[in-house]
Amino acid sequence: MIRYPNGKAYKPLNTSSPSPKKLEASYSNRGMTLEDDLNETNEYYVSKGIAIVHKKPTPVQIVKVDYPKRSAAVIKEAYFKQASTTDYNGVYKGKHLDFEAKETRNKTSFPLRNFHEHQIEHMKQIVKQNGICFVILMFSTLQEIYLFEAQFLFPYWDAMKKDGRKSIPKADIEKKGHFMELGYHPRIDYIKTIDKLYF
Amino acid sequence: MIRYPNGKAYKPLNTSSPSPKKLEASYSNRGMTLEDDLNETNEYYVSKGIAIVHKKPTPVQIVKVDYPKRSAAVIKEAYFKQASTTDYNGVYKGKHLDFEAKETRNKTSFPLRNFHEHQIEHMKQIVKQNGICFVILMFSTLQEIYLFEAQFLFPYWDAMKKDGRKSIPKADIEKKGHFMELGYHPRIDYIKTIDKLYF
Repeated sequence: MIRYPNGKAYKPLNTSSPSPKKLEASYSNRGMTLEDDLNETNEYYVSKGIAIVHKKPTPVQIVKVDYPKRSAAVIKEAYFKQASTTDYNGVYKGKHLDFEAKETRNKTSFPLRNFHEHQIEHMKQIVKQNGICFVILMFSTLQEIYLFEAQFLFPYWDAMKKDGRKSIPKADIEKKGHFMELGYHPRIDYIKTIDKLYF
Repeated sequence: MIRYPNGKAYKPLNTSSPSPKKLEASYSNRGMTLEDDLNETNEYYVSKGIAIVHKKPTPVQIVKVDYPKRSAAVIKEAYFKQASTTDYNGVYKGKHLDFEAKETRNKTSFPLRNFHEHQIEHMKQIVKQNGICFVILMFSTLQEIYLFEAQFLFPYWDAMKKDGRKSIPKADIEKKGHFMELGYHPRIDYIKTIDKLYF
């Protein structure tokens, strides 16, 4: 089991990216998820003025809204929409940051099914526009977290689409990516890595 | 009445920032709103690779979700949350862009009640982090749109909080801001202004 320095248990998210059902499961999750860690990390960065990064709200298609008298509007019917961008973005020293975070329980490779075509497309656009774009990959069983720059992800994605392998070998992530220690405050200090790589 | 070059009528949004009820009203609006224009402008920029800018999803607090057999999850109870950031952000030539768009029917000044404390706070953080931060202000009755840099907005906000005036005189917006012609493709070419100011 993964534990934080304070002894709190680390509960990883599901392997694949959160579908509405998995999202729901994580709501009732009382342990810590990669998303929780990144949210706390981002709050830390914002509070210290280190970087301004936020998670985007879950996109929802609103169909029906009620307006009860003397109380707040209630959404009575809505559906989850698939995000067309990455989940996290913001600014560090003027530069645009854009990233996605994913987990796997696998130990030897990271499955590409964790990503969606439109997310990869968005990341390619960000890279072309000279933004800093990456993924945070967590091997939850191994307690290892890597920052993997988007430009290294694309060749694996493109190869998979041409009937190549459906995952990135862990050895490649170790070589091309950047291992990040799980800390306490901030929990996942990805800005430290970004600072080394780009500034 | 404001008309696009193609003759289509321009229907402005409400004066103040969209509360859930006003948002609902704009859903049934078949004309064009400032938000529609910016969405089409951003789509244009993305499709041409000029800049990658998206509107953030409306933040919603999900309370109850149903999972009917053989169909998509349905959100049965949810509430609108107030956004803690600006509505639009993205990347242009590597730099982070962050902005908010507001309309007024006033002709001589722009009411500051269009903004919220936490949005101003967020914009101050972005400016400190060297991001490009601004507001797009539309005088809908006058058919005039201005790009107004966030650093010029803050003194008016701070003065208002010290019992100063509750609006920005239009003359000040004309002097410190940048008039933008309403076009067809893109409709509101704010990148042209950003390019002149920062690159």
